[in-house]
Amino acid sequence: MQTKKELVIDASVRGRKGNSSNKHYSQEKRASSTNTSFGSSAAPLKIVFLGGLNEVGKNMTLYEYGGDMILVDCGLAFPDQDMLGVDIVLPDFTFVERNADKIRGIVVTHGHEDHIGGLPYLLKVLNIPIYGTRLTIGLIKGKLREHGLINEAKLFVVNPGDRIDLGCFNIECIHVNHSIPDALALAIRCKAGTVVQTGDFKIDSTPIDGGMIDLARISQIGNENVLCLLSDSTNAERPGYTESEKKVGDSFDILFRQAVGKRIIVATFASNIHRVQQIIDVAQLLGKKVALSGRSLDNVVNIGQELGYLNIPEGLMISIDMVKRYPADEIVIITTGSQGEPMSALARMAFSDHRKVEIGPNDYVIISATPIPGNEKTVNKVINELMKLGADVVYEKMYDVHVSGHACQEELKMMIGLVKPKYFIPVHGEQKHLRKHAALALSMGIDKKNILIADIGCVAEVSQNEIKFGANVPAGRVFVDGYGVGDVGSVVLRDRKHLAQDGLIIVAATVDMQLGQILSQPEVVSRGFVYVREAEQLIDDARQTALITIETCLDNNITDLGIIKAKLRDDVSRLMYERTKRSPMILPIIMDV
Amino acid sequence: MQTKKELVIDASVRGRKGNSSNKHYSQEKRASSTNTSFGSSAAPLKIVFLGGLNEVGKNMTLYEYGGDMILVDCGLAFPDQDMLGVDIVLPDFTFVERNADKIRGIVVTHGHEDHIGGLPYLLKVLNIPIYGTRLTIGLIKGKLREHGLINEAKLFVVNPGDRIDLGCFNIECIHVNHSIPDALALAIRCKAGTVVQTGDFKIDSTPIDGGMIDLARISQIGNENVLCLLSDSTNAERPGYTESEKKVGDSFDILFRQAVGKRIIVATFASNIHRVQQIIDVAQLLGKKVALSGRSLDNVVNIGQELGYLNIPEGLMISIDMVKRYPADEIVIITTGSQGEPMSALARMAFSDHRKVEIGPNDYVIISATPIPGNEKTVNKVINELMKLGADVVYEKMYDVHVSGHACQEELKMMIGLVKPKYFIPVHGEQKHLRKHAALALSMGIDKKNILIADIGCVAEVSQNEIKFGANVPAGRVFVDGYGVGDVGSVVLRDRKHLAQDGLIIVAATVDMQLGQILSQPEVVSRGFVYVREAEQLIDDARQTALITIETCLDNNITDLGIIKAKLRDDVSRLMYERTKRSPMILPIIMDV
Repeated sequence: MQTKKELVIDASVRGRKGNSSNKHYSQEKRASSTNTSFGSSAAPLKIVFLGGLNEVGKNMTLYEYGGDMILVDCGLAFPDQDMLGVDIVLPDFTFVERNADKIRGIVVTHGHEDHIGGLPYLLKVLNIPIYGTRLTIGLIKGKLREHGLINEAKLFVVNPGDRIDLGCFNIECIHVNHSIPDALALAIRCKAGTVVQTGDFKIDSTPIDGGMIDLARISQIGNENVLCLLSDSTNAERPGYTESEKKVGDSFDILFRQAVGKRIIVATFASNIHRVQQIIDVAQLLGKKVALSGRSLDNVVNIGQELGYLNIPEGLMISIDMVKRYPADEIVIITTGSQGEPMSALARMAFSDHRKVEIGPNDYVIISATPIPGNEKTVNKVINELMKLGADVVYEKMYDVHVSGHACQEELKMMIGLVKPKYFIPVHGEQKHLRKHAALALSMGIDKKNILIADIGCVAEVSQNEIKFGANVPAGRVFVDGYGVGDVGSVVLRDRKHLAQDGLIIVAATVDMQLGQILSQPEVVSRGFVYVREAEQLIDDARQTALITIETCLDNNITDLGIIKAKLRDDVSRLMYERTKRSPMILPIIMDV
Repeated sequence: MQTKKELVIDASVRGRKGNSSNKHYSQEKRASSTNTSFGSSAAPLKIVFLGGLNEVGKNMTLYEYGGDMILVDCGLAFPDQDMLGVDIVLPDFTFVERNADKIRGIVVTHGHEDHIGGLPYLLKVLNIPIYGTRLTIGLIKGKLREHGLINEAKLFVVNPGDRIDLGCFNIECIHVNHSIPDALALAIRCKAGTVVQTGDFKIDSTPIDGGMIDLARISQIGNENVLCLLSDSTNAERPGYTESEKKVGDSFDILFRQAVGKRIIVATFASNIHRVQQIIDVAQLLGKKVALSGRSLDNVVNIGQELGYLNIPEGLMISIDMVKRYPADEIVIITTGSQGEPMSALARMAFSDHRKVEIGPNDYVIISATPIPGNEKTVNKVINELMKLGADVVYEKMYDVHVSGHACQEELKMMIGLVKPKYFIPVHGEQKHLRKHAALALSMGIDKKNILIADIGCVAEVSQNEIKFGANVPAGRVFVDGYGVGDVGSVVLRDRKHLAQDGLIIVAATVDMQLGQILSQPEVVSRGFVYVREAEQLIDDARQTALITIETCLDNNITDLGIIKAKLRDDVSRLMYERTKRSPMILPIIMDV
């Protein structure tokens, strides 16, 4: 058991397990120890929500006290299906940019995309120091390398138990369980008090590695009169407890043995290193070789092995190129694509488009994941296609081939019960998750007026006296499409949607305005509207309509190109709707020579 | 209990409960009784699958024996998200058209869209007689009226127990439970033997109306040496039994009472008349008024009331316009939109876009449905928005506010056990459902070689000696977009996808080919690509590139417009990819005057 005194000592020996070349010592030393008693007269702490509320993904929180600001996480979100052509979605960094001089650093809780994915884009705006555990920093490094930012980046490795001083803030790192190793909760201290932000967590008493979540330390902090708890709402709708990761290993053991004579293929999230370890362990036990398929998996396994998070026996791994040389029942392939992503390795296998792996009746496929809402259909498609090729596919929950990385209701209640915060703010979730989590806090005896359901752009002002909303700050979604960050907005998306729905018709003509003459007959080109060879009459009629419209305009001495174009748009649009009941985008182009 | 003799009598008194004006008597009398013993030397019956296998929806099956063909069901499917702009999906009617002279009629098992939705389109191809129960025919009538086909249509009402003679086929109608009243299973008899096609069914021993599925009759038929069973695979993955519809009524009773002081809004499928009845019953019991919101709901409630399927107490229903005049706790609103459909009444309420209903903290919303795979995100969006407006929303399974209309594993096994077919063909489902259902049949002792997993376009040739695949027939998906049936194909969809992903750029120029001169500077127009005002430089550069490309062509005496366009496409495309990493569709238009 740690005492309060040891705690202070902890702070003084911070970084002891860290990389000795870390430059963050000096920075940490700048501020004096702040975890002393908090007066009720202290100014309020501001908690600014820049992402992760009323949405899944792009988690980002800013803390402001005095003249100092710190950030926690900077994630990305994946586009909804109505964000056509968008690659990824970022938080709006406007508020961060405006306060560039106050920001002391960013602490990252773990290495998932929804917590680190926005970092390269943030760093292009503002090159602030980044703090994270060894694996988290390892994954961030890979990301920054891709973006050509690795040289300038200020990266600092921290360990559970470490404390980071950033301006007037002192941040303690606490080990938690999650579906990626090395995840942290944070105790963030300043003169206003202590805030505990759980990050993504679950309580796993039999984790694969790294030990159980540090409930002892969390309990100790709970005796500090914690001001506010920000807790992970992802599974707030689910009763009970999330099963241990260990359970999945047991299932693998049973299923691998059942798949007599077959080649085993397991699809999982690349970042779930513990899951990968368990597959490796069972394969080793049963004398099988393991091959990897999927770029992100190669990447994570490399990093995991390099940093010592993966324990791979000598000679176990073989290249995916070698798989065909072994009998089916000596092989386990680990692959990406558990969400049915169209370009993933598993999808390519399912649609017979994988250069190295051909699926047949001798394959036993385990999908070790649950579809994220919105992915159900793509996952089903992959399952169906695999089955059509004759493979056995295991995907149901009943086989326990997947467990969540997030706490269910009983765990969430335990967190609230241990931290005993004055105020409670549910984070990481849609409205329904936040509400359910708030209801859990209420059921634990937290006063209704002390529970805040916030939104992105909200500022919670927290003091010993009250919790209330301050003035909002800019927040939102910034779309990344190719190299473009933010250049795809609502107008572009509306056009894409229109084009996707009904296609387009271009009506082009050349006129001599001075003479009031048409120089070339209107040309009508369509895309995504009808198959033109079967609709020649319709296109002819559109051409005829356009000709009449332009002639009528010219005859009436209408020379304003804007007016002529508007008329063309109306007339051709009307014709098309009457004939097809569709409303393609009409683009008139008139060239005046 | 009925005996075999009574069975024959049944056939002679067929239609006894039917509409006396039915014209189908004469037709039925055309054929002699066929349900006598079946010789093993009989020619094989052909079962042709035109829809509903390896897909959800557009169910359609064709039976051929001798020179006669009959159809069972003609449904539609809703488009997947990659079928951009498509309104509905139909079966391919090519095979039906080719065999127009052989087709004696179509029997419809029940009134859901995936069983009746294709009928108007089929009738435009071939005006065959349609047989269905009273409610089914009522719903079909509404559909045909919309399409202006009601006058020519040959509609015949049948009742459970009735038999229909169509050519050499005799079809017995058997009452089953489902999520719409008046659903049928069919026993289809010809010289080759008896085939039982279950339609969509569940076993509900406490249904709201119409009585339990006629297991007694199904058992009797099971003693006829049934040749083949085609059974509903929708829930083949779910263990156990589907709960009774009654359970939902009990939940409504509890929840309506819990919602003290609040207005109650229940979203459900319009066609689930029993669900609507239960809402009405509980509302009546608690002294509340009921209003409807949603066009399809108005429609179904009208038909249901007119035909006596709905029992609505005098004075209970009020217009949705009157809702605001009542205190919140005296009102129940039944609405469509349980799948989160963007234009539905519930979605409009959630996004504060409903003219009659404004959602607030005084509302208690029950979503009495489960999201169909693919709809999870839209349903979640609606739930989240309702909650943001302060409403309580009940949607979890744990409250039993919805039960499925399809049989689970134990019911499916019971069906197989009662029918005792020689051959088994799972229908209505994706590959994973068909496989699971086949596995259930195998576990019931049906010989593996007697179980057939088919696909659309497959022909099962079934005789007492064997079941095997015959030569395939044309089958597939026909897209309906506006008035167009089949004019949106893969080319159009590919273009729509491209446009949706990256938008388009039009490069237009007027040239005088004879003089080898450009008459107007190239015009560059983009849509869905970038927000032009913020990308003027990029558009300018595209214009410049286009100018150079055309000039170079003209300087080199290239006068083939096709070649110049191809060069323009290449050069502008390359520029755009280099600068934005996007690949918009490039449409060059060159007018030669």
